[in-house]
Amino acid sequence: MKEAKEGNITKEMRIVAENEKLEPEFIRRGISKGRIIIPKSNRRELNPPIGIGKGLFVKINANVGSSKKVFDPEEELAKAQIAEKYGADTLMDLSTGIKESDVIQIRRKILENTNIPLGTVPIYQSALRAIETKGAIIHMDEDDLFNVVEEQAKEGVDFFTIHAGVTREIIDYLVDHPRMMGVVSRGGTFLAAWILHHEQENPFNKKYDYLLEMAQEYDFTLSLGDGMRPGGIFDSTDYPQIRELMEISTLVKRAWNNNVQVMVEGPGHIPAHEIEQNIKIQKSLCDEAPFYVLGPLVTDIAPGYDEIVSAIGGTMAGLAGADYLCYVTPSEHLGLPNREEVKRGVIASKIAAHAVNIARYGKRASEWDYKMDIARKNLNWKDMITLAIDPELAEEKHLRSGEKLDEDVCSMCGDFCAIKLLRDALEEKNK
Amino acid sequence: MKEAKEGNITKEMRIVAENEKLEPEFIRRGISKGRIIIPKSNRRELNPPIGIGKGLFVKINANVGSSKKVFDPEEELAKAQIAEKYGADTLMDLSTGIKESDVIQIRRKILENTNIPLGTVPIYQSALRAIETKGAIIHMDEDDLFNVVEEQAKEGVDFFTIHAGVTREIIDYLVDHPRMMGVVSRGGTFLAAWILHHEQENPFNKKYDYLLEMAQEYDFTLSLGDGMRPGGIFDSTDYPQIRELMEISTLVKRAWNNNVQVMVEGPGHIPAHEIEQNIKIQKSLCDEAPFYVLGPLVTDIAPGYDEIVSAIGGTMAGLAGADYLCYVTPSEHLGLPNREEVKRGVIASKIAAHAVNIARYGKRASEWDYKMDIARKNLNWKDMITLAIDPELAEEKHLRSGEKLDEDVCSMCGDFCAIKLLRDALEEKNK
Repeated sequence: MKEAKEGNITKEMRIVAENEKLEPEFIRRGISKGRIIIPKSNRRELNPPIGIGKGLFVKINANVGSSKKVFDPEEELAKAQIAEKYGADTLMDLSTGIKESDVIQIRRKILENTNIPLGTVPIYQSALRAIETKGAIIHMDEDDLFNVVEEQAKEGVDFFTIHAGVTREIIDYLVDHPRMMGVVSRGGTFLAAWILHHEQENPFNKKYDYLLEMAQEYDFTLSLGDGMRPGGIFDSTDYPQIRELMEISTLVKRAWNNNVQVMVEGPGHIPAHEIEQNIKIQKSLCDEAPFYVLGPLVTDIAPGYDEIVSAIGGTMAGLAGADYLCYVTPSEHLGLPNREEVKRGVIASKIAAHAVNIARYGKRASEWDYKMDIARKNLNWKDMITLAIDPELAEEKHLRSGEKLDEDVCSMCGDFCAIKLLRDALEEKNK
Repeated sequence: MKEAKEGNITKEMRIVAENEKLEPEFIRRGISKGRIIIPKSNRRELNPPIGIGKGLFVKINANVGSSKKVFDPEEELAKAQIAEKYGADTLMDLSTGIKESDVIQIRRKILENTNIPLGTVPIYQSALRAIETKGAIIHMDEDDLFNVVEEQAKEGVDFFTIHAGVTREIIDYLVDHPRMMGVVSRGGTFLAAWILHHEQENPFNKKYDYLLEMAQEYDFTLSLGDGMRPGGIFDSTDYPQIRELMEISTLVKRAWNNNVQVMVEGPGHIPAHEIEQNIKIQKSLCDEAPFYVLGPLVTDIAPGYDEIVSAIGGTMAGLAGADYLCYVTPSEHLGLPNREEVKRGVIASKIAAHAVNIARYGKRASEWDYKMDIARKNLNWKDMITLAIDPELAEEKHLRSGEKLDEDVCSMCGDFCAIKLLRDALEEKNK
């Protein structure tokens, strides 16, 4: 951000500009104003670096990571690589575990074996450290929080979710005014519980300047986490959520004043008619800082299909201005996803992002659709399969009924194929 | 519609009112003005009859039916029953086949063994009759078209898709001004090819009054098909599509003048930013006649995942005022769906409709979500599974990692469960 403000166009800005089909100066200007970020640690090379923000294609993130119950570093790496293969623009490693060393091991493996930006929620590791060294999460101290951020930054983590907007004031309000689902953000909950127990302000809020110093040193990007994000549609757009967003909006500006790249995380469970207003108030309060939404999920009834629920909400959020969508897998609300669910989550989220890009940018984004339509028009099954977002699956479904790729009709309509019939009628007409 | 105009509240109106949590008079008034329909043949009993239109919950339709390549009546019935089980409000039998008797056999089986409204596209059977009796679809005559409608009406088909808006004028325009994907509606294509070959007006348009007479006799509902619906996002909202909609708007009013219930079918492939305008122009031109959308599909790149693409478009269409969503399965653009794909298509469409209902009607529609949130808040896995839109799948995913239903955390977060942590912290606080 410092380079951008000084008018310098870096190598990363040039690469992003090329991939976005934009001028490098557009990227530089966006970064200087905080509207665009290139999340990339100065300790890590990315291939390619990616930009997130105003005027750019909507990006998607895939979460991977173990939990205490399921610990398998190879499996988490495989999920990360599947996510990368199917089009995730970034990864977040949300590993927890039994021992602190578990999460360190997984994170390093992912950092070494993937090429896209990696984010973490460092408080998960701090919590494990507190359990090991002090017996319980609640005994976590400021050193546990900040030291872990620095240790991870040294390893090259590109962006950190930090719940600096979870203030004592908001938690006190929540105690007096319970909401339906309470707090469903894990990081937010650790801090809420800590605030309640110690009767002190959130260290990430109190010592935010220290965090900004570290961000400058390692050039990591801050993702201001929404600890108060609604955990069900009935908590949507309530006092704690908006109060935290307002706190975050002040933290955004402090980051910019210190040349630190920053984005804002958002909901969550939001009914469809409240999505647009949620995005617009964030954009307005935070002076168009990039907005990273978790979902949104437009209904709570569909565990097993939340990738669909989230694709609906993500598209609507993107149309209203969100810049970056966190995927949701079919196992959300049920358990840790497996590889197939990671793939499905990425594809659902990619569809949402692409639908938004078409709507926002027209031709700049729809070349892929154009090629597909040409293939369909020509009943060219080989191209239709190759161009599909998941060619293996498309081929399997197409060939299931004994079809061949060089035939010009499919089992859906057979000889009643509309495209073929009209083509033949027009040919007859033009004889 | 005649009864409603005369101020009479029928048994069907009462049942619909009860299921919609509305007053019977609201339903009667809606029907009298054409804004609500209860598609139900006077030759068939339904359990329950359903209403579609303004102020009512958004409904979903599932298509089943064989093609020339895949003919298996038991399989199509099984698909119809799966669709009914997972929440389809109506069915359409789109069977084609090798012989006319094939489609008759499947239709009768479905009529006998399902309880929800059934629609067809009768021209498919007319085409088979023309092939058998005259050697080619193109030799289809007016009798083939109208006799099939009457024969199916006598069997109790509740609504018919009739492409009466495909006029000679529009087809002539299309010949002079080709669009990217031409015509992708099968029924529309048969008529387009017929018009081109015979150089005559579409019989359904020319003899529309005859159709209205039959509709009165059997009390079937007309679904005015959109033969010009875009087959790719680049044809969206173009001249043929809107010209046909204008023609349809005049046919709607002629139906109403004859006390015939009518709905309007709509696109199709529409990029996200054009959905709202598409719904609003239909509502405006057609004086709020119920709008039945096929998708819309917001991108063309995702064969294999078009249930997701369609859930996105369907939600946006519903928010803009669409009343009735036709499902799309994951095998759309690839082949005939199997049972699993039918189920997935229904669930995706149901999610879209439900998301719209929550947005439109708040508490009237969100009791299901409320119960789910209570179960989640209480970490009550048994209830969470039972309440899920697909309990079997939710249970399978939840239990996969060795979990038990009476445990209070899941493999996603393990002991890091936010809900549990905050609950414990608050309990400690309140000691």
